[in-house]
Amino acid sequence: MPVYADPTDGLAVPVHLLRTWTAGLLGTIGTPPDIAADVAEVLIASDRRGIASHGTARLPNYVALVEAGGRSALIRFDGRNGWGHHASRVAVDWAIDAVAEVGAATAVVRNSNHYGIAGWYALRAAERGLIGVSLSNTSPLVAPTRSRVAMLGTNPIAIAAPAGRFGSFCLDMATSTVPRGRIEVAARRGESLPVGWAIDAEGRPALTPEAALAGALHPLGGEESTAGYKGYGLSLAVDMLTGVLGGAAFGPNIIGLFSTEAPSDLGQTFIVIDPAAIDEPGTFERRLEGYLEQLVAAPLAPGAPGRVLVPGEPEAAAAARSDEHGVVIDRVHADGLRALGERLGFPFPDAATPPSEQAFDAGG
Amino acid sequence: MPVYADPTDGLAVPVHLLRTWTAGLLGTIGTPPDIAADVAEVLIASDRRGIASHGTARLPNYVALVEAGGRSALIRFDGRNGWGHHASRVAVDWAIDAVAEVGAATAVVRNSNHYGIAGWYALRAAERGLIGVSLSNTSPLVAPTRSRVAMLGTNPIAIAAPAGRFGSFCLDMATSTVPRGRIEVAARRGESLPVGWAIDAEGRPALTPEAALAGALHPLGGEESTAGYKGYGLSLAVDMLTGVLGGAAFGPNIIGLFSTEAPSDLGQTFIVIDPAAIDEPGTFERRLEGYLEQLVAAPLAPGAPGRVLVPGEPEAAAAARSDEHGVVIDRVHADGLRALGERLGFPFPDAATPPSEQAFDAGG
Repeated sequence: MPVYADPTDGLAVPVHLLRTWTAGLLGTIGTPPDIAADVAEVLIASDRRGIASHGTARLPNYVALVEAGGRSALIRFDGRNGWGHHASRVAVDWAIDAVAEVGAATAVVRNSNHYGIAGWYALRAAERGLIGVSLSNTSPLVAPTRSRVAMLGTNPIAIAAPAGRFGSFCLDMATSTVPRGRIEVAARRGESLPVGWAIDAEGRPALTPEAALAGALHPLGGEESTAGYKGYGLSLAVDMLTGVLGGAAFGPNIIGLFSTEAPSDLGQTFIVIDPAAIDEPGTFERRLEGYLEQLVAAPLAPGAPGRVLVPGEPEAAAAARSDEHGVVIDRVHADGLRALGERLGFPFPDAATPPSEQAFDAGG
Repeated sequence: MPVYADPTDGLAVPVHLLRTWTAGLLGTIGTPPDIAADVAEVLIASDRRGIASHGTARLPNYVALVEAGGRSALIRFDGRNGWGHHASRVAVDWAIDAVAEVGAATAVVRNSNHYGIAGWYALRAAERGLIGVSLSNTSPLVAPTRSRVAMLGTNPIAIAAPAGRFGSFCLDMATSTVPRGRIEVAARRGESLPVGWAIDAEGRPALTPEAALAGALHPLGGEESTAGYKGYGLSLAVDMLTGVLGGAAFGPNIIGLFSTEAPSDLGQTFIVIDPAAIDEPGTFERRLEGYLEQLVAAPLAPGAPGRVLVPGEPEAAAAARSDEHGVVIDRVHADGLRALGERLGFPFPDAATPPSEQAFDAGG
């Protein structure tokens, strides 16, 4: 996932305040406390990790979905159109519990909703010494190779594992070259796009964000000549392992992102493996740590912006910054939360301060 | 996997002859019949599917590995440096059997060797109505993003499932943009390379096959700007789920392809899921078939060389051609097999005919 640079015109909100406010706000619309706590936890995890697009910025949309009605089954464990975060947390916990007996377990959620960042569920397994895989299908934004129409989601794959001094290995990636949010960032910045990110409405390479937003994303790999069919296959495989396997919606049949017209009926799948079931406890983690030591010491290519990274490292660094200095959210995001809090009679905390008043601006 | 065009200067060998000769040849070096049958089956599956790089062309190398000694544990099921094809077949069959009781199962093989095409094992599950996932680590050929040195394998991912009139869905992909064999083909054809396939020995984009062969492959996605770090993460995740999890070798510690100096100690992992364990039998396959119907009917981008493909479709078409007209192998490949047969006193069948004498050359 892209770690966005902190905005300069927003607020820095202490993590605990953002979490308790979010959970409390959800309470005002009838969300049971345990479910609200799950949702707040996952959303704040995203904000903390610098992935502003998947955190509390989405609260107004989520509340709109709940208020659209027909979404009252929030306490069911089987995902029946409730908060995807909660159904998925229950599902991955089932798998985490199950591996103590069976060594490896798979949980599928159907009739679900957005579940935030895929990595959170994989990391939940990794923090218990297990390997976690987290998959979800999503609304169609990606054109299959050769087509000019979005028929597949950016269907993320997250894989996490305990990694010694590196904390956790956590690959958390969309199966498109970039997520749609990255195109929106390019539009705000007036950037042009490289070939391989997106196509325009006629299916030609989109070289401006505007053309891309009217078209569709490329699957990972970009054009057919640079193996975009692999990203297409991965996206389709994720959909097969989530929506098709779970009996949820899939592909072009999934409704648009945050549409309130019908249930999303997304599918999510979690695979958890306990390395200690087939080896001495701790040996898997030590091997992985040693492997990562080799990788971060690799000789660099000319122009490399830094050493080789471990998947999940930029997000973990952002999370450490957020825990110390607060989650930095941009003005549009902050205004959206303030307006939402006001409308629901649950004011946004005034402990939030402009980021320019924070010590970390001077220190880096 | 790339389906290579049939060579024009080679032989067309009936599939059954190529299979029985291969199994018989392996018998001459002491391979038990059931193991030899497994190896022959997987190698011929590759040749049939047009993936000349992973089939009987490798027999001379395989025999060299066996003859190098220390490789006599071929009947063990746990992979102890025996034929990877056999250990992996046993492993995936264990998982296929296990799902009848547990719904989803994972099998890991350590101390293994090359196992041929990853897709064969996934397809074995799909042919039984199951979802199959097949992963392997391989010798280092891919540079992690930002590095100029090959430290990761092309670590394949195969995922297959039953798909109604489409036969099987079968994604079978290296986690590099292209396999090394594709660079070798470009060298023979005098082609230049697009950015995103490989780097040269100094870590700069390799624009000629010669520069690429002296350097390293890019992970899927190519350069960092086109999300090559995702392919790097996928390759690393495959290694983590195979070599690191299994306690086999991994990453830069794996010896070179077909080196006879030490055991390969590769790792392979198979995940099998039974959709009927969570849904009415047959419903998963019908849903997947319907999804694929939608995809192949998608509106095309300008210049598309044909309709949207289903992963595995080009390989299945090649297999049908091979079954009717024989496996077409190029002259170098044929000469290698003839020399090997001669040396081991097991002549290559003379039923093989030049492809120009075959009816399909006229018909398409």
